[in-house]
Amino acid sequence: MLFLFCLFLQTEPNLVQSLKNEALANQPTFNSLTELCRVAPKRLSGSAGAEIAVQWAKAEMKALGLENVRLEAVQVPHWERGPVEALRFQDAKLAETFPLPVTALGGSVGTNGPLTAQVIEVQSFEELQKKAALAKGKFIFFNRAFDNTLANPFEAYSGAVNQRSRGAIEAAKVGAIGAIVRSMTNRLDDYPHTGAMRYDENIPQIPSLAVSTLGAERLSHLLKRDPNLKLEMELSCQTFPDTTSYNVVGELKGSQFPEQILVVGGHLDAWDLAQGAHDDGAGVCQSMHALGLLKKTGFIPKRTLRVVCFMNEENGLRGGRGYYEQHLAEMDRHVLAMESDRGGFTPRGFGTDASGPVMEAFRQIVAELSEIGADHIELGHGGADIGPMAKSGVIQVGYIPDAQRYFDFHHAATDTIDGVNPRELELGTVAMAAFLYRAAGLENLPKNPVTHESE
Amino acid sequence: MLFLFCLFLQTEPNLVQSLKNEALANQPTFNSLTELCRVAPKRLSGSAGAEIAVQWAKAEMKALGLENVRLEAVQVPHWERGPVEALRFQDAKLAETFPLPVTALGGSVGTNGPLTAQVIEVQSFEELQKKAALAKGKFIFFNRAFDNTLANPFEAYSGAVNQRSRGAIEAAKVGAIGAIVRSMTNRLDDYPHTGAMRYDENIPQIPSLAVSTLGAERLSHLLKRDPNLKLEMELSCQTFPDTTSYNVVGELKGSQFPEQILVVGGHLDAWDLAQGAHDDGAGVCQSMHALGLLKKTGFIPKRTLRVVCFMNEENGLRGGRGYYEQHLAEMDRHVLAMESDRGGFTPRGFGTDASGPVMEAFRQIVAELSEIGADHIELGHGGADIGPMAKSGVIQVGYIPDAQRYFDFHHAATDTIDGVNPRELELGTVAMAAFLYRAAGLENLPKNPVTHESE
Repeated sequence: MLFLFCLFLQTEPNLVQSLKNEALANQPTFNSLTELCRVAPKRLSGSAGAEIAVQWAKAEMKALGLENVRLEAVQVPHWERGPVEALRFQDAKLAETFPLPVTALGGSVGTNGPLTAQVIEVQSFEELQKKAALAKGKFIFFNRAFDNTLANPFEAYSGAVNQRSRGAIEAAKVGAIGAIVRSMTNRLDDYPHTGAMRYDENIPQIPSLAVSTLGAERLSHLLKRDPNLKLEMELSCQTFPDTTSYNVVGELKGSQFPEQILVVGGHLDAWDLAQGAHDDGAGVCQSMHALGLLKKTGFIPKRTLRVVCFMNEENGLRGGRGYYEQHLAEMDRHVLAMESDRGGFTPRGFGTDASGPVMEAFRQIVAELSEIGADHIELGHGGADIGPMAKSGVIQVGYIPDAQRYFDFHHAATDTIDGVNPRELELGTVAMAAFLYRAAGLENLPKNPVTHESE
Repeated sequence: MLFLFCLFLQTEPNLVQSLKNEALANQPTFNSLTELCRVAPKRLSGSAGAEIAVQWAKAEMKALGLENVRLEAVQVPHWERGPVEALRFQDAKLAETFPLPVTALGGSVGTNGPLTAQVIEVQSFEELQKKAALAKGKFIFFNRAFDNTLANPFEAYSGAVNQRSRGAIEAAKVGAIGAIVRSMTNRLDDYPHTGAMRYDENIPQIPSLAVSTLGAERLSHLLKRDPNLKLEMELSCQTFPDTTSYNVVGELKGSQFPEQILVVGGHLDAWDLAQGAHDDGAGVCQSMHALGLLKKTGFIPKRTLRVVCFMNEENGLRGGRGYYEQHLAEMDRHVLAMESDRGGFTPRGFGTDASGPVMEAFRQIVAELSEIGADHIELGHGGADIGPMAKSGVIQVGYIPDAQRYFDFHHAATDTIDGVNPRELELGTVAMAAFLYRAAGLENLPKNPVTHESE
């Protein structure tokens, strides 16, 4: 298999320089993200903010001069937090009630007024099984912390997040009436982190909330002092009927093989506690401006680049699944999909499921990115929204920024534009744009084996 | 030349794991830095804060169980900012006076009451030469911005910092009465950044201050509207006689060649506008805790590791020079010196002036640091404090964290503990500790050629 990659390197030595100069001088991604955070800070699927974000993304793509800018409808869940979310304990000595810093988990049912119960603290579902006999009518407090010794915070997240996603199910199975989950973060602070939780058919739906890590430490301490401590939980969140929302799509047409498509995207929806600056305003703005940078600097790719701002990654993945289903007929012309959904931090490189000569070609591509620190490549997945396309053999690429600070912001009130460094964000756009341009110009870009065409 | 490096890798596979687990679980560096920022936030040489920092560092080293903990006296400059620093302009329309956000540059003389003058804006010393005839009795406004298109902010700093260090000299040469310097940062914001400036013998000493980048933009705009605009400058800073301060030194004795020394350090002094968290509280805490981590995890190096918290890097380098002069007799037993003075950000790797087989050995060392992202090595300098030792052929190693955010904090009121991510800081300590331990165990560690024994 022949790759003519060296040819590109020789004839276009200034790709990375050109992209970098434009991005760092004018900060188009950061300006865009600042605006998104201002006009649509709270944009959970089904909300008014999400619809503003959709219209904003469409207008932004048009302003960048992209082609075929359009909305593609998907049905999305519509859950609202409501004004009341509280978890209180009675201080026996002071005869006074104190709140813990909590937030409802996305998808939770409300409490229909205050619920009062004792608490069982557990570190795992296994421990919950052992304490099942005690659980009836109580709250289950899932208090397994991140393993902070792991160098990669995403591994720590993976090791803890089943408490959030399935805690209410497991708690309800043993007769509990509510789930309290330690927040998913490396930090010890007072910010509760929300995120998606699920219910299972035939298992009662009980309310579920996250408590800040310091709140979790405090609660654990209180329970050691008084195992019979009672808590009062109150949540006014509720789920409304599904509603229509949109993936936002635009293109930079390929000069040589316009029918072949490389997708790049992030998700436009974001949790409602802050502005979704890192998660995933950063990713959608980088994706749009990767195309914008290439167009501005005159690097027109050989294949078509298509940006997709996916709706509903956070609590349903309807955008990612919808895109795949709606474009199944042209999936054979989709050769690669890239996602940016790990925050707008300083670049490290990319993860991919490519192998063999494609992986070798990618290695050469990232070698060109050493000056901006994006020269690392590893085997890994691309991202949740583009995941469905893997079934059709579409090569998955995930942009990897530095991960150490990600869970300081993820799903919490801290995820605002103030936490984004403009240069780190822009360098990510540069890395993505350069990778996409080079990949779109590869002589051979064979797809991965098709696994199954439908789930 | 034979390196028995592989042997270490085989017999001690858990070096990085052990250091990382200890550091990330207990965050000793961050706890230490938090304390330093609390007890001695303003610790410019000659200040009361600097003396508190000296005593604190000594106590911290003893608490870590280091040996030969001691103070080594050096004479340091003593400059104080004073309560007044202002730069005001008269708004013609509103007939009112407005301040610009400014701060005195370190070492500047005061104004002895308000100074009022017109302003000449220049981008460079060359431009100043061309406008020399107009400069007499005026303020010179040095407004050359960072070149933000450079991927490495330190290069942008290098390209702009002569305005700060020599602006007052060049301005005085052409008869100006004060120098106004655009702050040294990539950011557009309202924080003025201080830093050292110099005077030359036989050139009049005129006051010099930094204006925030947004203030600089505003001033430039005002001058375009009204080239005859007058500013009023007032600074109450002054220089006192030199005073005695200290380098703080401690050791972890080598198990096999205790007489051979590897130095590691940062600088204990910091500018007085904030807490010196990144510059360079991070470096001194990482240096101390690199030794602390090795001791705690039982990795006793073959050669002696000596930590030096240098005094007076910011406005004199008396600590670095003093250490070299005081230890000249044992300089032949100094085999390597490492400095951390680029902030407590996520690790990238190291720079060094080593070459040949030593560089090759260092490459193998950093390869072991890929999991924590510190596997990059490049030719470069070590750091200002250890610089004098290079004359005696002592190999220079500089710890390199990610640089994108450094000048958001450098010498400004923003440089507080809030800007430091604990995990990023600790991973730096791990990288430094592992590098030092491996280097201290190298069979051969030949020095660089001696250049000249004295300046």
